[in-house]
Amino acid sequence: MEIHPTAQVAQGAQLDGVAVGPFAIVHAGVRIGPGSKIGAYCEIGHPTAGEASGLVIGANANIRSHSVIYQGAEIGEGLATGHRVVIRERSLIGRNAQIGSNADIQGDCRLGDFFRSQSNIFIAKGSRVGDFVWMLPYAVLTNDPSPPSELTVGCEIGDYAVLSAGAMVLPGVKVGAHAVIAAQSLVSRDVPAGMLVMGTPARVVGPADERRLPDGSGRAAYPWPGHFRRGYPPGTFD
Amino acid sequence: MEIHPTAQVAQGAQLDGVAVGPFAIVHAGVRIGPGSKIGAYCEIGHPTAGEASGLVIGANANIRSHSVIYQGAEIGEGLATGHRVVIRERSLIGRNAQIGSNADIQGDCRLGDFFRSQSNIFIAKGSRVGDFVWMLPYAVLTNDPSPPSELTVGCEIGDYAVLSAGAMVLPGVKVGAHAVIAAQSLVSRDVPAGMLVMGTPARVVGPADERRLPDGSGRAAYPWPGHFRRGYPPGTFD
Amino acid sequence: MEIHPTAQVAQGAQLDGVAVGPFAIVHAGVRIGPGSKIGAYCEIGHPTAGEASGLVIGANANIRSHSVIYQGAEIGEGLATGHRVVIRERSLIGRNAQIGSNADIQGDCRLGDFFRSQSNIFIAKGSRVGDFVWMLPYAVLTNDPSPPSELTVGCEIGDYAVLSAGAMVLPGVKVGAHAVIAAQSLVSRDVPAGMLVMGTPARVVGPADERRLPDGSGRAAYPWPGHFRRGYPPGTFD
Repeated sequence: MEIHPTAQVAQGAQLDGVAVGPFAIVHAGVRIGPGSKIGAYCEIGHPTAGEASGLVIGANANIRSHSVIYQGAEIGEGLATGHRVVIRERSLIGRNAQIGSNADIQGDCRLGDFFRSQSNIFIAKGSRVGDFVWMLPYAVLTNDPSPPSELTVGCEIGDYAVLSAGAMVLPGVKVGAHAVIAAQSLVSRDVPAGMLVMGTPARVVGPADERRLPDGSGRAAYPWPGHFRRGYPPGTFD
Repeated sequence: MEIHPTAQVAQGAQLDGVAVGPFAIVHAGVRIGPGSKIGAYCEIGHPTAGEASGLVIGANANIRSHSVIYQGAEIGEGLATGHRVVIRERSLIGRNAQIGSNADIQGDCRLGDFFRSQSNIFIAKGSRVGDFVWMLPYAVLTNDPSPPSELTVGCEIGDYAVLSAGAMVLPGVKVGAHAVIAAQSLVSRDVPAGMLVMGTPARVVGPADERRLPDGSGRAAYPWPGHFRRGYPPGTFD
Repeated sequence: MEIHPTAQVAQGAQLDGVAVGPFAIVHAGVRIGPGSKIGAYCEIGHPTAGEASGLVIGANANIRSHSVIYQGAEIGEGLATGHRVVIRERSLIGRNAQIGSNADIQGDCRLGDFFRSQSNIFIAKGSRVGDFVWMLPYAVLTNDPSPPSELTVGCEIGDYAVLSAGAMVLPGVKVGAHAVIAAQSLVSRDVPAGMLVMGTPARVVGPADERRLPDGSGRAAYPWPGHFRRGYPPGTFD
């Protein structure tokens, strides 16, 4: 693996088997597992004013260009990001996360294993996101019920839940496992597990597993692992 | 024209008459027409995991800083981008496109001639966008009717259509020529040509050409080429 | 203070007591006050096609990475930006502004003192924003009532107003001082001072000062300086 000659890598950064692209910056205290790639113009291990220090990213990460990851985050193996992602301090992210371009993950939050997002998502401080969650473009998790205030409270998103494009979850709302939020919905109340909600404010439409795929096959659209397994390691859902 | 000494230009990139800014990266297989400018921190010809190769950008392009354009795109002359645009593989974009900052064009899509967008638009894979289309800030074209699935289907946007700020078009929806989508509308059904639609979900308000400009002149606001021609070459609409 | 050896600083830029990070670019005609920091990959004093020239940024600015600020802006002391902010020409910004990541400030606008935003806000040309205003993620100020047209008209946002996440203000709308716009609302009519509005289109819910904080204390949530003063200099609200 190769450190590009234009990259700025601090002494003390642990990068065995890591490729670092042109003009990338890696600060001291960063430890990244083998097989990883850091794209051009990334700043990894960005200092923070808080108490965080160090940054651990697991093996086989692919961090695309113009991304910024702060000190004090801990990220499991298999991370893949789009371009221009920001991950702030004290974010704990599980294995095999895929985070789309322009995502803004504000810190002090947890994302489970196999998190998937498309571009332009926003995750406020204090959010708790389970395993296998999907966030489509412009899905937003908020945390301040009466902004600005000191009373922020993060959302909780259950395993396998899907937040469609433009969906916004209000502070402290709990979205149950396998729930589905329709596009551009504003979720102001807790969503029971397995339910599809829609609208502004979002209301329950019915069980998500009653939705059929639009291919005439009659197959259920949800739970989605019944038909969608692209990009997951073999055996993940068995 | 000048290649900045800090730029990283691969052998084999064809850049006759092209200015390349500080810290920009141009990969092999890229061909850009004369009179073009590549801004600082751009990565042009980004490799892709797919089958795409090469990248052709026509003459007189102005690609602003921090943008990323993938291999396998084909873009006509006169491209102008804002900052931090991403254009993914196999995007076919016509002449004189102007694409605002932070736009995310996901690949495998077609944009016609004289496309115009402001910042923060999102165009999902498989979208088909006609000539002279306008997308205002945060307008979004989606493609997955039951995310996540393998059944993505792009939107079709007709010539001269206008998508106002925050408008979202659901997967597979067809928006007719000269149609106008009001701000923050959620377009879940096809929109007939020339109609104005509004709301969540969007409903037809009436013919767009019944809307008057707000200057008291009595002139029709649509079709917009009747009053707005700034930035188009003389004779474009004659 | 230090200019990183990889930075590109033009002769004539006035940077006494300013730290400039790796790969940053500072153009001629830029004047930045002492105690300021320019992050990596920033381009400060970006040329503009218009008549603007020069760029003045007050003391103690902290401009985070990948940001672009154009010639012709004037910004007071104490600016703090997130990553990847764009500030276009002829923007006048007061003291102690804090602008979140990915913000797009389009130029020819005014922002008062102590402006605060979180990430991904959009401020259209011609906007007028008062002192102590808050904009939460994805809040948007528009300016074209019948896009595209030459009849753009900016919004006016009064002192201490709060625009919650995803709120969009339509062109020319005036939002009164201390007004509060609920999340994802579409504001199509003027909002009286001190009122809370909500919905699509937004309607008046009642006086904002009737809202209580959600901590059971019975304290009013608005005007917010009654309970929230973090990050403001001592005595600001006395």
